[in-house]
Amino acid sequence: MIFDQSDKPITPASDPFYRVLSRYFSLSEENRLTISDLERRRLTLRPTDNLVDRPARDRRAFVLLKGWTITYKILHDGSRQLLDCHVPGDILGFHCTQIQISDRFIEPLTEVEVAEFSIVDLMSAMNEGNGLSHALSWFLARDHAILVEHLINNGRRGALERVSHFFLELGVRMGQAGQSDPHDFPLPLTQYLLADMLGLSAIHVNRTLRDLRERELLIHRNGRVVILNAPRLSELCGFDPGYLMPAPRAILR
Amino acid sequence: MIFDQSDKPITPASDPFYRVLSRYFSLSEENRLTISDLERRRLTLRPTDNLVDRPARDRRAFVLLKGWTITYKILHDGSRQLLDCHVPGDILGFHCTQIQISDRFIEPLTEVEVAEFSIVDLMSAMNEGNGLSHALSWFLARDHAILVEHLINNGRRGALERVSHFFLELGVRMGQAGQSDPHDFPLPLTQYLLADMLGLSAIHVNRTLRDLRERELLIHRNGRVVILNAPRLSELCGFDPGYLMPAPRAILR
Repeated sequence: MIFDQSDKPITPASDPFYRVLSRYFSLSEENRLTISDLERRRLTLRPTDNLVDRPARDRRAFVLLKGWTITYKILHDGSRQLLDCHVPGDILGFHCTQIQISDRFIEPLTEVEVAEFSIVDLMSAMNEGNGLSHALSWFLARDHAILVEHLINNGRRGALERVSHFFLELGVRMGQAGQSDPHDFPLPLTQYLLADMLGLSAIHVNRTLRDLRERELLIHRNGRVVILNAPRLSELCGFDPGYLMPAPRAILR
Repeated sequence: MIFDQSDKPITPASDPFYRVLSRYFSLSEENRLTISDLERRRLTLRPTDNLVDRPARDRRAFVLLKGWTITYKILHDGSRQLLDCHVPGDILGFHCTQIQISDRFIEPLTEVEVAEFSIVDLMSAMNEGNGLSHALSWFLARDHAILVEHLINNGRRGALERVSHFFLELGVRMGQAGQSDPHDFPLPLTQYLLADMLGLSAIHVNRTLRDLRERELLIHRNGRVVILNAPRLSELCGFDPGYLMPAPRAILR
């Protein structure tokens, strides 16, 4: 684990978190400096490092700046449930700092760079006027909405719909953070992890990906996803990206 | 739908929302007045009324004061996924006001009384000093943690564990809001709705409830749940109520 105190200024070009928020909210110079302050303390982690292993004892949260992580919970029988995988720009661990649990974990999938901050600093940022408190509230509500869709993936969608919905979502999230084209992005999840995420067997995921490729909807190859026909794929699984966007009135205020 | 402007003062005894928050956080007189103001506008609804049917157009959220509601999402094929059922003291619809969706619904299961407020007022309450901003942040994180457990119910737990975990959770929530003994509480969910909530068939739910009764762990009869042996039931499903409680450091600040 490598620490680094950064004095690089935050700009939309360099910072995926600022990029997501400023895409929809008009942030002041004061807001930009607050985000820059929040992100001052940087950590670089390798896949074997565990970012949060005792979240209940922790009052830190993170912004993911580079790379991918997964969040999971360990059940009492030792099995684990993946909850989400995170792309640059995401806030990690906010909810964990608020509640009395010790069974949620955040693990890097690739080499990652995060900004670490105290939850107290995030909460005073949320109290800051102008757009920032609205932007951050939206961002946390978006996390909640993503979790709702993952619950629906596991509960109501068939294999074809699950895989399609999850990939379309990841594409939008990568696009919002300015990381890639929403229809052509890297995905460092193995088929085993993907299966775990979606409540399917690895064989079933493999078969579903072949099916999607044969229908010329989507290709997943060599750690990359290419969405060939987004309108048809969205129709197939009922994907509406509205849950990833702020309500118009949230923006206009 | 009946509107009522209330001037009744909020006290722990009369208000389940204040009761949950003040159980863990030391709230000032100013905080108490803010909550009282938030809850001034009361609505009474019957089971046929729909509380939020176009959440995306809405900037209102609610505190449930009396009765039970369910929250669900309608999928593109017309089927629905229950996300949670709400007990007095819960905040309803907060996340919906922040994002661009129109497919989530809140429906009363019984006659309910809610306090309706504008999301702008809630957000300025969150900016209020002292304990309130911490209490509200915890409360929203708790919503997130509940959703995580419902995802795990659907993804990882067998029928016996699902039913047990859900009932133990509801008991703690009812107890936190001062509504009943956590081990003996009313439950107006039909077996059909319960099945929907837990991703099981109604027959499977029925069989599981019989099994739990025969093991002398839990009785569900005539709209009432009685938990006979909470330690053994908790052990059976790995229930740890920590996700419903604030982190110690969240309280101590």
